[in-house]
Amino acid sequence: MEIMNPAEIEKASFAIISEQLGDRQLIPENTSVIKRVIHTTADFDYADNLVFSDTAVRLAKDALRAGAHLVTDTKMALAGISKKALEQLGCTACCFIDTPAVVERARAEGCTRALAAVDMAAEVLADPVIFVVGNAPTALIRLHQLVSEQGLAPALIIAVPVGFVNVVESKEMILKLDVPHIVARGRKGGSNVAAAICNALLYETTDRRL
Amino acid sequence: MEIMNPAEIEKASFAIISEQLGDRQLIPENTSVIKRVIHTTADFDYADNLVFSDTAVRLAKDALRAGAHLVTDTKMALAGISKKALEQLGCTACCFIDTPAVVERARAEGCTRALAAVDMAAEVLADPVIFVVGNAPTALIRLHQLVSEQGLAPALIIAVPVGFVNVVESKEMILKLDVPHIVARGRKGGSNVAAAICNALLYETTDRRL
Repeated sequence: MEIMNPAEIEKASFAIISEQLGDRQLIPENTSVIKRVIHTTADFDYADNLVFSDTAVRLAKDALRAGAHLVTDTKMALAGISKKALEQLGCTACCFIDTPAVVERARAEGCTRALAAVDMAAEVLADPVIFVVGNAPTALIRLHQLVSEQGLAPALIIAVPVGFVNVVESKEMILKLDVPHIVARGRKGGSNVAAAICNALLYETTDRRL
Repeated sequence: MEIMNPAEIEKASFAIISEQLGDRQLIPENTSVIKRVIHTTADFDYADNLVFSDTAVRLAKDALRAGAHLVTDTKMALAGISKKALEQLGCTACCFIDTPAVVERARAEGCTRALAAVDMAAEVLADPVIFVVGNAPTALIRLHQLVSEQGLAPALIIAVPVGFVNVVESKEMILKLDVPHIVARGRKGGSNVAAAICNALLYETTDRRL
């Protein structure tokens, strides 16, 4: 076993992923996101599962160049996003799930904290905003409502919750929206996948390419 | 789509997982860990991939009851571990990857920060210690060395890095150790899987069962 540094390991890993994807036709603009999610999961299902709205990646990169605010539904996804890349681009990332006002609102309204956190983000964050959802179907259901009924216009919705209940359905709702989105169709996804998608977009924008 | 609260969703999800596992024979002691990892990933491969040393779960629960220190290789895994359950048991969780002394030691010794962080944990944490590795093969390689050459005796090693380079080999090294371990054999794993295993063990110990 040859000991390599993390940068060498990453490069070698992406070479293996590219080789294993073979002559599969991927849309070039979406390739780095797909490969980074496979790198994060060792699961090639994501080459099929990930669905991108037209120009989602290009629009996301525009938003990042404009200093977007990324808001995640879990602290785990937040922990996985590259702080160095955010800083380099003048972007921020936050998570409102434990914010006292959100906890209180969820209690008062009898909704999930994930839903109340979406409301708070929609109210307090200036455009452009990227919603990063790796866990909570209720966050997606609320986002669908805010976009379709109240004109919320996120720069991007990353819709990749994992699970067995309401997950597939909530992601299908986002797929129908006329808003830039990246969705992991089906049951799979998670906070790690959400963070990987953010990092792929950030690295592309900062020209840390693979 | 019926809107349920998170506890109801979790219960319904585990019922679906149990149903889909069918009449598969799992060792009863290991079942809650396996199911929680599947819950976290929607990936049933883990019913095959997860390898437990004899009585690993029982010994881990003993360690948690004795106020174990959990040390993770990433802040993402740390973020995913239930703080409420840790507190209830008088356990702690930490991650040394960004600790200045670790950063400095990695630079001075030309090793990865993950490796230097294992050394620091081995030096500063009192027994019982649970090593939680969801990302860094070098952390496992160093743990193998400390256990086999220097008599380090962790209460448990959770060895679940994900990836394509040195990952499979480093996990096979841990499988050969005569130390309690839970290993995700093969390429798959990750910080989410690492946190899910910790949470399954914590919940079992606090009698938050499913």
